[in-house]
This record gives sequence, C-alpha cells and structure tokens, in this order.
Amino acid sequence: PLTVDWDAGHYDTGGYEHYLLKEICEQPDTVARALRGRIDDRFHIAHLGGLNMDARELRSFRRVKIIGCGSAYYSGQMGAQLIEELARIPADAEPASEFRYRNPVVEGDTLYVAVSQSGETYDTLAAVQELKRKGARVLGIVNTVGSAIARECDGGVYLHAGPEVSVASTKAFTSTAVVFALLALHLGRVRDLSPAEGKRICDGLRRLPEQIKEILTLEEQIRELAIKYSDAPGMMFVGRVRGFPVAREGAQKLKEVSYIHAEAYPASELKHGPLALISPELPTVAIVPDDELLDKNLTTLEEIRARNGRIVMVGHRATDAADDCIVVPKNENELDPILLTIPLQLFAYHAAVALGRDVDKPRNLAKSVTVE
Amino acid sequence: PLTVDWDAGHYDTGGYEHYLLKEICEQPDTVARALRGRIDDRFHIAHLGGLNMDARELRSFRRVKIIGCGSAYYSGQMGAQLIEELARIPADAEPASEFRYRNPVVEGDTLYVAVSQSGETYDTLAAVQELKRKGARVLGIVNTVGSAIARECDGGVYLHAGPEVSVASTKAFTSTAVVFALLALHLGRVRDLSPAEGKRICDGLRRLPEQIKEILTLEEQIRELAIKYSDAPGMMFVGRVRGFPVAREGAQKLKEVSYIHAEAYPASELKHGPLALISPELPTVAIVPDDELLDKNLTTLEEIRARNGRIVMVGHRATDAADDCIVVPKNENELDPILLTIPLQLFAYHAAVALGRDVDKPRNLAKSVTVE
Repeated sequence: PLTVDWDAGHYDTGGYEHYLLKEICEQPDTVARALRGRIDDRFHIAHLGGLNMDARELRSFRRVKIIGCGSAYYSGQMGAQLIEELARIPADAEPASEFRYRNPVVEGDTLYVAVSQSGETYDTLAAVQELKRKGARVLGIVNTVGSAIARECDGGVYLHAGPEVSVASTKAFTSTAVVFALLALHLGRVRDLSPAEGKRICDGLRRLPEQIKEILTLEEQIRELAIKYSDAPGMMFVGRVRGFPVAREGAQKLKEVSYIHAEAYPASELKHGPLALISPELPTVAIVPDDELLDKNLTTLEEIRARNGRIVMVGHRATDAADDCIVVPKNENELDPILLTIPLQLFAYHAAVALGRDVDKPRNLAKSVTVE
Repeated sequence: PLTVDWDAGHYDTGGYEHYLLKEICEQPDTVARALRGRIDDRFHIAHLGGLNMDARELRSFRRVKIIGCGSAYYSGQMGAQLIEELARIPADAEPASEFRYRNPVVEGDTLYVAVSQSGETYDTLAAVQELKRKGARVLGIVNTVGSAIARECDGGVYLHAGPEVSVASTKAFTSTAVVFALLALHLGRVRDLSPAEGKRICDGLRRLPEQIKEILTLEEQIRELAIKYSDAPGMMFVGRVRGFPVAREGAQKLKEVSYIHAEAYPASELKHGPLALISPELPTVAIVPDDELLDKNLTTLEEIRARNGRIVMVGHRATDAADDCIVVPKNENELDPILLTIPLQLFAYHAAVALGRDVDKPRNLAKSVTVE
C-alpha cells in the first residue's frame, strides 16, 4: 500500500492571510527543492533519475508533445519553448481534453509529457491512458507522489513543492517550469547543446531562488498597482514568444481569483483584432523581457498608448511607454519567463483581496478536476 | 508586369448597408467559386494545379505547419484539424509573428502553408521568406492574385473570393477553410483516405453553398439575439475540438466590429479557470455540433447554467440547456465548422450595428497589416 507523508504544518496558512499568498511566498524554497540534487556540475546536465530512459533513447525522439489542463497546460507551453530552444526538438503543448477527444496521430518518435499538480486530473489521466494503450512513451511531471498519473507514466519528475492548498496554482506552476528547464537542458545536452551553454543554464537555474526572493520584496508596489487597476472590468495580457506563456498564466490567475475578465493575446496579434478593444477601460499588462524582442515589444506598447490604453509593464527596464512598471531581476533569456510570472501572481492575489473575493476558493472552481 | 483585374462592381455595397453584410451574404457564391473545377468526381480527389507538387512529393511530408495572422491564423487552425483528421498527418497552426520570432526548428519533411487574404501581411511574408531561405516547401493560400506572398511561395491555391473591403474578414475566412478542406482531401487521398470517404467529403463540399444560403435566412433571428446580448460587457465563446476554431473566429469577429470583450476558450478548459468568471453579465456562445462530442458539450452547457450563465447555442439541435439556439443545417462532421462560422459573423455584424459602431472600419484596425 502506498503511504503519502505530508508535513502537517503545510496545512495551515503559517501566519499569512491566505494559502495563496503563503504559497506564492514559498517559491524561493519550492524552486530550490525542484532543483535540489538535479544539477550535475561536472557535465552541466540534469540528474533526472525518474525518467527511466537512457541517453540513447532520449536522443531518438524527434518531437515533444506536452499535455495538461489549465495552468498545467500553460506551464507546458513554457516548457515546450524551453525544449525547442535548448534542445532544438520541435515541441508544443495542448490542452489534455482537446488532445484526447480529437483522435490525434500518435507517433513512436514523439516523447509525450503529462503535467498535473495533483496527478489526478481526469482529462490528463485519460489522455495518458490512451497514449499508453497506443505504445507511446509518456513522462509525468507531477507534484503528488504516488498519484494516478504518476503511476500510469513510464517515468517522470516530481515537483516536491509540498501540498498546494489554494485552488489557483502558483508554486506548482513555477516548479513545473523549473522541471521543464531541467528536462530541456537534459535533452539539449544529449544532443547539440554545448557544455558551456549547459553551464550557462545551470548557473541561471541556481540563481532563481534568490531572485524570486528579490521579486517578493516588490509586494507592496504590486499591491498598490493591483488596487489601482482592480476597478477595470477587463484586462489584456500580452507577450511575445517567451513572454506569451507568462501572459497566459498571468491572465489565468487574475481570472481565477479576482473574476476580472483577463485575456491573454500574443502581442503581435493585437493589430489583427483585439486592438479594437483597447481603451482606458481595458488596461494591458505587457510582458517585456530585455531580450532580442525588446524593441518589438516597445513598439507594441506605443501602439497601445496611441489608442489611450493604460499599461502595466512587467520586465527588466522601466520605460516611459508604460503607465506603471514592475521591474524584476534578469536571468538568462530562456529562464526569465519563470521569474516574470511571480509579479503576476502577486498582482492577481492583491486584486482579488481588494475586490473582497474568496481568494483561496474562487467561485465555481475545484482544486483537482477529477471529472471530465 | 502583373496586372490585377477586379470587377469594379465589387467596390460598392450593392444595396447592402455595409460591405461587411454584403460580404457575409456573398458566401454561397464565394464558396462555390473556391470549389469550382477543383473536385475530381472520378477519383474523389481535389484538382489543385497550383500546388506544383506531384503525389509522390505530397506523400513524403510527415507534418503540416500553417502560419497566418488574425482570422487567417484561425482559419489555419480549422485547416490543421481537417488535415490531421482526413489525411492523418500531424498538423498545427501558429501565428506567423510568433513563428518567425521564436527561431523554430524548420524540418525538410514538413509542408508549410501560409495564409493571407491580401497576400501582403508583413509578418506572414517575412515568415515565408525565412522558410524559403531555409529550403522549406511553402504553399500559399491567398486571395489577391500576384500578391507578395503568392509570388514568394512554391505553389498555392487562390481563393477567388473577389475583393474583401470590410476590415473584418468573412468570405475570405470561409473560402480559406474550404480550400483547406480540398487540401486535406487531396493529402488524404494520396495517402490512406479511401475513395468512398473521399466521395463523402466531395459530396459534402458540394452541399455547402446551398446550406450557407439556408443559414443566411436566419438573419432576422440572429439580429434579434445580437441586440439582446449586445449590452453585455463581455462574452465567452466556447467549443471543443472542431468547434474551437469556430469559437475563436466568432470571438474575433465580435471583438473587431462590436468592441465587446469576447474571448474564446476550449469548452473543457472552462473548469480549469474561466468558470470563475461566469455570471449573468458574461453570456456564453457555445458551439455544439451534432457529432461524437455532443454529450460532452451538453454537459458544458449545464455547468454554465448551474453558475447562472446565459447561453446562446449554435449547433444542429435546439436544446433546453441553452437560453437561445441558432440551428444550422448539418453537413459532414469534418465540414460543419465552416457552416457554424456563418451565424457568428451575422451575430457580430448585428451587435456592432446595434451599438452604432463603424462596422466596415473598426477603430484602431487596418485591412491589410503591412507593418510588423
């Protein structure tokens, strides 16, 4: 029989007003735990013993397909970008329920990765079972040890993030993204990623916990902005490439806990439709990392400003093109999305508190969706 | 020198109040033109001479990647489903700007398809040029003969839809979807799609123009519903699998011309976040085709109703689970998305008229986006 041990201390709010805030603030620690013992400093590769696949098998995959639901799906999109960028294996993410109901072509040289905090998400579990029946290789990225999805997969990586009590996922999201970075590093280093590049990513990963601590010190500034914008009936969240999964997860958090109609959109697609919506009543949160797309993103800010849209910029350099700027520490370009997510969690939390929402148990939602 | 002949008569509204309505009502004719001379009744395959690829080459592709912007991207998502379903080749669509800026892995055995009504969309053109420089095979699906994208591609298919004047795309969208159905049929019939299945699709395609005429007779009912719901600050559009691109295009149309904050979401993902938003103030348009997912979709309607959400159902059978039903004629499951799109165009149009919007020239938008 499986026994699952959790420290009972995890089940109180530990002095925080809500589990959600507690779990946001735990992230320096949970990210450190996701990394612990998993970085090999000699070969600049990841130690992921649970994969149950050797280098030869890992080299044979021509494609990676990630499935999950809700925030797990968005973390999968972040993961797909990490894998395609570091390992140069085409990768994409898809909602598990869409995947299982469309009768997808299942390929032998594709590595499937299922993501679920609880490990019990029904649509994801059913997709994994369908894949296994077709002989596919499936890895699980799961928080709950011994859960149904963990048992069904060929191998996987646990988050070790401790129980996540609040319905809206925060620490499980960032830990999943960190595990994807490790997987991408690993798939890259058994292929064409150089030791020097591997070292660059390892060093970046190790800086994350301290940088998350720095971001958490911005809480008061973010709280004030959340109050300022919480009267908006809706918000747009925009990002480009690495910034887009950040925008999606930011919009998801705000939707879930504040009930503000937040929508994420690829920044460059704004001018193909949603720009018609832009007005002072629909503020925009723009993800603007200091990477090779900085200029493009600044152009987007100007397009929004020209339509009298209000902007909160989340990035690495304050700019006059935005009304408000949340400036976070810079890591490697590939890892910045993990850090850029944290201010959006705090933003959603404080908007929800300002609006008097039931922060830890938003209306209509369940923590683990164990029905179809 | 290239000369482009358009019938000057296309440039007036021909008795309609707006170009948008005229172009919606032209669709029985434009869909017929997209099909004309392109169905082979002996082999139940498509005649697409402009592809410039023989059957052997078409068989060699292991994957199809579709790129476009705005509605062209959403039509590409519809096309990807048609191709994966009929030809069993893994296919997906991606916004052209995301694709070109993320340095994607470009594979020799992938068929790339670029979609653009104008043939001048800058992000799509730049993506095609990047692909061509990497030796990829690229087809264009374009309306404007001799346009930049048409010239840059290895081959392609013209829509022959006539000039589209209204900024919001309608007839170009449905013609693109029809061309994708022809391409999917063709790719299927050079692979494993049987002659009998090919004939089923050919027969279905030929029924489309008459069925679109039938849908257009629902205009008065749809106008009344559009007026009824036009006071909503926002709306959700939900669909599953084949219904999801329909929902995305429906939300896009409503955004563009009415400035209502409409967002599309996969139906089964609602319970992983957006269900928190559902209230009488945020009505839902649900795409509910009478296919193998009907029961799942009805369950979704009940979830929304249980949270006091108002629902407009667009599908093939009226149901008490929705407040209002728009019932359209049934075609083959694979082709139904094309028909289900039409009522949403009329809904967006009449909502915009009711709100006094500048229907043909929505604020902040341009017809052809020839900048980055």
